[in-house]
Amino acid sequence: MHSIEVIFTPALLPLYEIKSKTVVIIDILRATSSMCVAFHTGVNKILPVSTPEECRIFKDFDFIIAAERNAEKVEGFDMGNSPFEYENPFLKGKNIAFTTTNGTKAIRLAKNMGAGAVVIGSFLNLDYLCARLKEKKHDIVLLCAGWKDKYNLEDTLFAGAVISRIGQGYSIDDDASISALSLFDHHRDNLEGLVRRSSHARRFTRLHMQTDDVAFCMQQNLYNILPVIEGEYIVAAKPAQPAAPSAAGSVIG
Amino acid sequence: MHSIEVIFTPALLPLYEIKSKTVVIIDILRATSSMCVAFHTGVNKILPVSTPEECRIFKDFDFIIAAERNAEKVEGFDMGNSPFEYENPFLKGKNIAFTTTNGTKAIRLAKNMGAGAVVIGSFLNLDYLCARLKEKKHDIVLLCAGWKDKYNLEDTLFAGAVISRIGQGYSIDDDASISALSLFDHHRDNLEGLVRRSSHARRFTRLHMQTDDVAFCMQQNLYNILPVIEGEYIVAAKPAQPAAPSAAGSVIG
Repeated sequence: MHSIEVIFTPALLPLYEIKSKTVVIIDILRATSSMCVAFHTGVNKILPVSTPEECRIFKDFDFIIAAERNAEKVEGFDMGNSPFEYENPFLKGKNIAFTTTNGTKAIRLAKNMGAGAVVIGSFLNLDYLCARLKEKKHDIVLLCAGWKDKYNLEDTLFAGAVISRIGQGYSIDDDASISALSLFDHHRDNLEGLVRRSSHARRFTRLHMQTDDVAFCMQQNLYNILPVIEGEYIVAAKPAQPAAPSAAGSVIG
Repeated sequence: MHSIEVIFTPALLPLYEIKSKTVVIIDILRATSSMCVAFHTGVNKILPVSTPEECRIFKDFDFIIAAERNAEKVEGFDMGNSPFEYENPFLKGKNIAFTTTNGTKAIRLAKNMGAGAVVIGSFLNLDYLCARLKEKKHDIVLLCAGWKDKYNLEDTLFAGAVISRIGQGYSIDDDASISALSLFDHHRDNLEGLVRRSSHARRFTRLHMQTDDVAFCMQQNLYNILPVIEGEYIVAAKPAQPAAPSAAGSVIG
């Protein structure tokens, strides 16, 4: 039986063995939500970059450049990290270089630590993600991006939602998984209410954000899309084609 | 208004500022529970030591030496980490040098990072701890010892229990505190049931432990005792004496 583990922040990732496991990157507010929006809009690929300085370079190579730090768009960049920005039809077919406070860091860390596969999770693609994970016979690591290496509520809640949906078929031995599932079960009737109490949602309020990104990111199952890491890029996984003999393994294999 | 924060593992402690705050060390299974038992028995003082090798030295200085690694007593030591061992009347008036996998490490770390005060929490002294914390006008950090820097259920549950009792008088702004309180609220009618599902309780089962340390450590309010750090040692705090003019500040001041 394969396992599911939850890791509450990237700071704890080095304590775990992730080789040959599928790592789901979770940054609900807002990087992994915005990535799902981007691929729904028709973005070609996203390059996750560690720092704004490195990200800016890709402007020279016909990338749209997007950067967020401390919940705000970094000056001089084309875009920030609000999911609404990624609905712009102008982005269809474009490549984006993207750096955020937590999400893109977690992606690069998981990749560098040798994860078997790295995929992107958000409430916007929850059921589709779960269906694709179940197709695979992989151990699963749910990696919460957190906030500057600290624990956060919204990513944990999402990890609990995944376990609630597919956990029955897996061994759940770690305390973080039990706790994440408990948090989800306790608040399943009002997930958004809990997330609005989170430190990050309150940070948005303090910044007087123009859009309600929390409400947007807590919507479930808008898209049948799974962003996955291929090489250095994030792309939309091709639809599963179990019956077609020409489909040599899915992208998250 | 003073704050309460929860830190889920010592690995995350460096992300926090703890100077001038009171840090409560939580290692329910079993170090901080056993320490409460020890002072109830009448132990004079406990020296928390980092490694078994260092701990052994104190045998030369008339200490009882106690060491646990991976939930088992280390060979050649007088005692391990079961709370039942600390009920032995022989220990009255004795000094103990003590090293454990998680708890004594967390104590030393909090001390070295300049905590304003370091005190010991367990279900065995829960209400007394809370009463003494409330007397003080301090910011409080609830530091879960965890398991080898990973998150655990039983320490989080205890943090939630403390917040449930005294949180009303404090600002609770961090997501870990909200989550710990939720976990406690969700399981308050069967705390022991949840803890028996924890990875550490299952570790005890695998080791065929002779005593039911989980049941012992989940008992609430057996003792009106607060172990506190004084210099390098852990001692029992003197009872609060608010009316006595000679009492120049409490030990957790």
